Amino acid sequence: MAGESLVALAERLGDLCREHGLTAATAESCTGGLVADAITDVAGASRYFLGGVVAYADRAKTVQLGVGPELIASHGAVSAQVARAMAAGVRERFGADVAVAVTGIAGPGGGSEAKPIGLTYIAVADHDGVDVRRHLWSGDRAANKLASATAALELLLERIVTTASAGAVGASGGDEA
Amino acid sequence: MAGESLVALAERLGDLCREHGLTAATAESCTGGLVADAITDVAGASRYFLGGVVAYADRAKTVQLGVGPELIASHGAVSAQVARAMAAGVRERFGADVAVAVTGIAGPGGGSEAKPIGLTYIAVADHDGVDVRRHLWSGDRAANKLASATAALELLLERIVTTASAGAVGASGGDEA
Repeated sequence: MAGESLVALAERLGDLCREHGLTAATAESCTGGLVADAITDVAGASRYFLGGVVAYADRAKTVQLGVGPELIASHGAVSAQVARAMAAGVRERFGADVAVAVTGIAGPGGGSEAKPIGLTYIAVADHDGVDVRRHLWSGDRAANKLASATAALELLLERIVTTASAGAVGASGGDEA
Repeated sequence: MAGESLVALAERLGDLCREHGLTAATAESCTGGLVADAITDVAGASRYFLGGVVAYADRAKTVQLGVGPELIASHGAVSAQVARAMAAGVRERFGADVAVAVTGIAGPGGGSEAKPIGLTYIAVADHDGVDVRRHLWSGDRAANKLASATAALELLLERIVTTASAGAVGASGGDEA
């Protein structure tokens, strides 16, 4: 079972998905399934969570998520470009309304000067497009996984709330016009 | 981070995969990513763990794992047949040597007289074929997820050890002949 703070975020995700009639999917590299695990700790998650891909190997990113091999070759698996493609890919493949993707270097190996341990990109996709954020965590492997999973759920929640309130304003404006 | 006992099993998996030069993949329904999360808690897991699919929705099982829709319609998503197809499917799609799949009813909802809460099928696939086991857990959602993830890692370890020792006996027999 995922930690309490993660599960609290996952419960909030469940509330929002039910409230707005949304389905969700996940694409995870460095978090390795922790985001999906937290989401599915919530009873009734099958009503809005369609599933996800743990794409550790590059081949998993291309075959399961449709990330272009040239994108990985040009920018590296840990990049804003690949995070965006993972989020858009998992959303399309699973037929979900919203999707979140995480790619990063959890450590202790795999870091470089250009891409240090803790570097993580998190992307969120919905019908309006894809956004990506860059993080640089300073913990050990377990702490970096947890920080990334927390940030992924937070970004997903933020996007749903923002889109929902923008939709409400738009509808209200239309009524007034 | 997954619990200590799960991570101990995941560390053993890492040792065996490195020892025998094997790659692994996972397909999870009711465990929701917990197996992959435990495997990726081990530093260096990217050397042998290719990734996995969290296939919560039926569509995820068909699109991401190649499970036949008619198999789900005939036997239900929680069945020995679907567990076998998930294991074989994820092994093929990820190009892994060994793969494990879990499908079950974690609860508290989703149970029936024919398929009660806690019913879980776990399948393991390698080049020799696919095996499946049936379990009936009696815990709550969190306990059932943990029991299923533990049994999945145990089955994967058992299969690797058995196949490896059978291979060694076969090679030894060949040498003596």
